[in-house]
Amino acid sequence: MKIGILGGGQLARMLALAGVPLGLEFVTIDPAQDACAAPVSEHWQGAYDDPVLLERLGQVCDYVTYEFENIPVAIVEQLARTVPVYPSAQALAMSQDRLIEKQFLNELGIATAPFAAIDSLAQLEAEAGRLNFPAILKTRRFGYDGKGQFVIKKPDDLHAAWTAMAGHALILEGFVPFCREVSILAARSPSGDKVYYPLSENQHHKGILRMAKNTRDDLLQAKAERIIDKVLDALDYVGMIALEMFELEGELVANEFAPRVHNSGHWTLEGSVTSQFENHLRAVVGWPLGATDSVGFATMHNFIGRNPDLKTLLALPQVHVHYYGKSARKGRKVAHATVRADSEATQSGRSAAVAKLARQWDDS
Amino acid sequence: MKIGILGGGQLARMLALAGVPLGLEFVTIDPAQDACAAPVSEHWQGAYDDPVLLERLGQVCDYVTYEFENIPVAIVEQLARTVPVYPSAQALAMSQDRLIEKQFLNELGIATAPFAAIDSLAQLEAEAGRLNFPAILKTRRFGYDGKGQFVIKKPDDLHAAWTAMAGHALILEGFVPFCREVSILAARSPSGDKVYYPLSENQHHKGILRMAKNTRDDLLQAKAERIIDKVLDALDYVGMIALEMFELEGELVANEFAPRVHNSGHWTLEGSVTSQFENHLRAVVGWPLGATDSVGFATMHNFIGRNPDLKTLLALPQVHVHYYGKSARKGRKVAHATVRADSEATQSGRSAAVAKLARQWDDS
Repeated sequence: MKIGILGGGQLARMLALAGVPLGLEFVTIDPAQDACAAPVSEHWQGAYDDPVLLERLGQVCDYVTYEFENIPVAIVEQLARTVPVYPSAQALAMSQDRLIEKQFLNELGIATAPFAAIDSLAQLEAEAGRLNFPAILKTRRFGYDGKGQFVIKKPDDLHAAWTAMAGHALILEGFVPFCREVSILAARSPSGDKVYYPLSENQHHKGILRMAKNTRDDLLQAKAERIIDKVLDALDYVGMIALEMFELEGELVANEFAPRVHNSGHWTLEGSVTSQFENHLRAVVGWPLGATDSVGFATMHNFIGRNPDLKTLLALPQVHVHYYGKSARKGRKVAHATVRADSEATQSGRSAAVAKLARQWDDS
Repeated sequence: MKIGILGGGQLARMLALAGVPLGLEFVTIDPAQDACAAPVSEHWQGAYDDPVLLERLGQVCDYVTYEFENIPVAIVEQLARTVPVYPSAQALAMSQDRLIEKQFLNELGIATAPFAAIDSLAQLEAEAGRLNFPAILKTRRFGYDGKGQFVIKKPDDLHAAWTAMAGHALILEGFVPFCREVSILAARSPSGDKVYYPLSENQHHKGILRMAKNTRDDLLQAKAERIIDKVLDALDYVGMIALEMFELEGELVANEFAPRVHNSGHWTLEGSVTSQFENHLRAVVGWPLGATDSVGFATMHNFIGRNPDLKTLLALPQVHVHYYGKSARKGRKVAHATVRADSEATQSGRSAAVAKLARQWDDS
């Protein structure tokens, strides 16, 4: 069975590595010659919206999926006429625009930060007054890893924010004084079966995820599952989904969801019976979903900018290294490592050593 | 860093799947167009002894290894002049000939079944009288999965055995009335560092391995490590090695070793902190070896002849499926699945379900 993936980055690479043992074959479309997924897939170098490549993809693949949400919805709609594409164009559209996404979540009764669409400086000033400071001005579309965001700490910043961001469709979001960042990862199959991973506890720095770890019997697990359930059912969703949330006074406030495998779920490769990558493929193909029980305690550390020295990493016990095959570039996610152990104490000590390395190599 | 592998079967496929996350790239040489490793490596279709391919391999690769021991020693010797090849030609030569292998083991003080070289029917009759019945007449070279063997149960079988096997260099081996089959898997790095996996407990049927599982605190673990230690040091060995042994009255009797990753170590993919595939690559490249602690209880089941129905397998909890991308053929190892669990009781129940499936699909 052949799976097409729009995008050939690290997520496509890890999808292929998870799918080959299941007998799946992969075609990836990516403009980069040295795409991360090229060594483990049939890599078609080209633009995601190249009509010739897309037509061919629809012909040779049994299913198509994607590894990032900044692809034109029209492409997915067109492809879906000849081959099943999961997640659906509707889910993709919903996740691409922060305004539509938050409205959708609120309509489902899911709390978000307060927000307002911004079309002018006057409107920005008015809404900032209503939402209070600090607030964050964001592009509605195409933001990732903290890009396309401006933190407005005080009224004096408003003009600079507008100058920096004008020309884009914008959304102003109130700041949530959260005590913790978490994400709920779940998969839904075409038949409506669902599995949920234990809440992932996340740490960001400069807008980029740095660490994510599995929780055990988290007090907010059931609440998080009820929230993602609403999203999955409303969208008749198929595949993995990740919803990032803030914890605020024992409640969950939704931030944004990604209709794909997600960085905060990389610990599932070693820390779960079935990884998010395998479950995404199982869902897309319509196979039974895999168990999501944790295997011990796992913390993932992102490496930003350049690969850490491999020998140093491998000398640490129970450290699982994932290079993405990327060249060094400031602020770029080039690799991650997951520390897994059977006891929390052991895991915690080992994780601290990797965190130190990650900071040392951090070039963001 | 680029690794060349002679052979593109399932072992090469799993080596590449383990090595890509470490940033390694792979070139495989295999005569089959649809070689198992082709989707995850740069596959050069051709004979293992094609001089043009071999010369090119030596030029483009940083290290070369192999996935089966029936390749001419001369090839490894020649390649080793331009690129490091591990395990060494000496280790390979030793493993290719059952007679030389057993002599080598005995010289190290390692017990084996009694054996004798056989060159004529008269010699066969004489040695069979000495070794007693049953005895097994084997080709000295190129046997695998029970091929090239003739079990002689009584004097009347001697003539038929000779007729069937004459023309090959032969060895007669006395039968070991074992109570258990085990293998010790270990890795040694160029600097002499070593790691040992917990003994694998194996079950064969019709000469083909059917099941292998990890043991915990086995009473023979220390003995097995001392045995493989002698082999590793005598050969100045680099890479993974697997030594199959029989247990007989609390003692270990060596059968044969494979200078490579081994079917009885496939459970390490999910049942060990570091898999045999990753540790083979770490050893070959000279990186620190990974921890070999078990992660719970794991049993591997081979699927022979044809792939079992994937949906049926995936509906079972904690079952990890590894298809090799092979077409169906009687007696061929086409896939395996590993059942892993945190408790032995849970593991055992689940494993029984997979064993039943494996038998059902068995076509050997």
